[in-house]
Amino acid sequence: MKLTIIGLGLIGGSMAKDLKKSNFATEIVGVDANPAHQKEALKLGLVDRIEEFNDALKQTDLVIIAIPVDKILTVLPHVLDLIDANTTVTDVGSTKKVICNAVKDHPKRGNFVPSHPMSGTENFGPRAAIENLFEGKISIICDHQQSKPQHLALVEKMYQALGMDIAYMTSDEQDHTTAYVSHLPHVTSFALANTVLNKQKRKIIFDLASGGFQSTVRLAKSSPEMWVPIFRQNKEYVIESLAAYIKNLEEMKSAIEDESSDKLLKLVQDATKIREVLDKKNPYLIKRERKIVKLYTR
Amino acid sequence: MKLTIIGLGLIGGSMAKDLKKSNFATEIVGVDANPAHQKEALKLGLVDRIEEFNDALKQTDLVIIAIPVDKILTVLPHVLDLIDANTTVTDVGSTKKVICNAVKDHPKRGNFVPSHPMSGTENFGPRAAIENLFEGKISIICDHQQSKPQHLALVEKMYQALGMDIAYMTSDEQDHTTAYVSHLPHVTSFALANTVLNKQKRKIIFDLASGGFQSTVRLAKSSPEMWVPIFRQNKEYVIESLAAYIKNLEEMKSAIEDESSDKLLKLVQDATKIREVLDKKNPYLIKRERKIVKLYTR
Repeated sequence: MKLTIIGLGLIGGSMAKDLKKSNFATEIVGVDANPAHQKEALKLGLVDRIEEFNDALKQTDLVIIAIPVDKILTVLPHVLDLIDANTTVTDVGSTKKVICNAVKDHPKRGNFVPSHPMSGTENFGPRAAIENLFEGKISIICDHQQSKPQHLALVEKMYQALGMDIAYMTSDEQDHTTAYVSHLPHVTSFALANTVLNKQKRKIIFDLASGGFQSTVRLAKSSPEMWVPIFRQNKEYVIESLAAYIKNLEEMKSAIEDESSDKLLKLVQDATKIREVLDKKNPYLIKRERKIVKLYTR
Repeated sequence: MKLTIIGLGLIGGSMAKDLKKSNFATEIVGVDANPAHQKEALKLGLVDRIEEFNDALKQTDLVIIAIPVDKILTVLPHVLDLIDANTTVTDVGSTKKVICNAVKDHPKRGNFVPSHPMSGTENFGPRAAIENLFEGKISIICDHQQSKPQHLALVEKMYQALGMDIAYMTSDEQDHTTAYVSHLPHVTSFALANTVLNKQKRKIIFDLASGGFQSTVRLAKSSPEMWVPIFRQNKEYVIESLAAYIKNLEEMKSAIEDESSDKLLKLVQDATKIREVLDKKNPYLIKRERKIVKLYTR
């Protein structure tokens, strides 16, 4: 199968590695606006060749759009304009509502399968691409009724080849959920980094940055070009989650200030329940045998 | 050398492992108020034997107090009362000012070397004890002028045996710095856990909890019995850091809301500078050859 990947960074590059290795793709064409990334992707063997945007969309089986979500918004309609009638298109952006809305009336909307594989690292660019990034994780497919069955099936097959389970939901549900488990943790990390960086005159702070600090602040190393558009596109739910988070912090602050009450202990004990939840292996997935889990509306 | 460790949890147990392995200690006596932990520590071979508090303090070279900071406050004066004239005492609590203040007029204050090895995990109890937990990390020694030279030297030697560098500062400096790099990240994790747990009706949230979420929330698994007293004892600086953090979050929130400005990009770009700072290997330590680094006032 011939695959076209637009955007050869962490996600696009990692998908290329595993889809080649698993023989899902026999031929991978890469598209990237950045000449340095083109070179690197070729050198690293992520793709078989680099082509111009228009050429790469001809006679290809599957197009994966793996670029920042603001760029998806402008690139996706052109992709749908240019592909052959049977080509499947998917994107891997972290937001879905705005993107789906941008092509809702496109004559080739049925060729498009909006998705979001939930995996990543704080690194970016072709050199960040690693094998097995997606293994055992979940990919979300949105509004699947609006994709034609053959295109949906191909994208499901692709995620199975990557070792992923699939959860189906509306693009609104995906944006709401992802705000809490992905976008909010990024905001909290960026803000923590800024808080500590502003204290930089106390230079010793960074020498003392232990494992606890490093893991909490890890996401703050992520790409601004990727994350700013995500916060913008998912503004409503990111603001909702951020407001809830600030409220929780204010509660902890008052509880620390008020030494007469047991409130602080209660809040911390409540929080530690996250251990059971995370240690349970995906309690809400009915089956996880590298198959499609029809959890939602499908 | 005979060592007495009071508190056989993550820190006390991990110190026992490495201090035995490195032959710094030839004999380790354990004290723990929890009978289950006594048993476990013996079974795991962390200590040679368990003794009662009073007995364990007789004819020992070095006493390490590795219990929650509220307990240190009451236990430390008794330890100083009971030890022989030549016994050295150290504690490993995350706060120092209140603890140092509690024994400032004790006749054996010179036997005490207040310290804080900056390492840990989110796990606790004897089974959480691991080898090499401290290797390459920094231990803080506070107000060292108030410890007699022979006691200071022994505690320095102990941290060297654990592979640690040593930073000297006042207990006030330690509490201020540690608020930002350790206590604040714990508050932020506890609050993030509560924010997401409160959304629990959206069960899919936990299935989707990816690596980014898990690393940001990891510290929220930590022991409430350990952390609540830390927040209380370092109240002033924890509140200061938390207020600064909330201010940073509010700024990000407004910047996300106001799409007309470049403020959001600027804030996120600023935050990513944490990468250079953390990737530089301890830029502010002059030497790091597993030796004592006399960075501060000493």
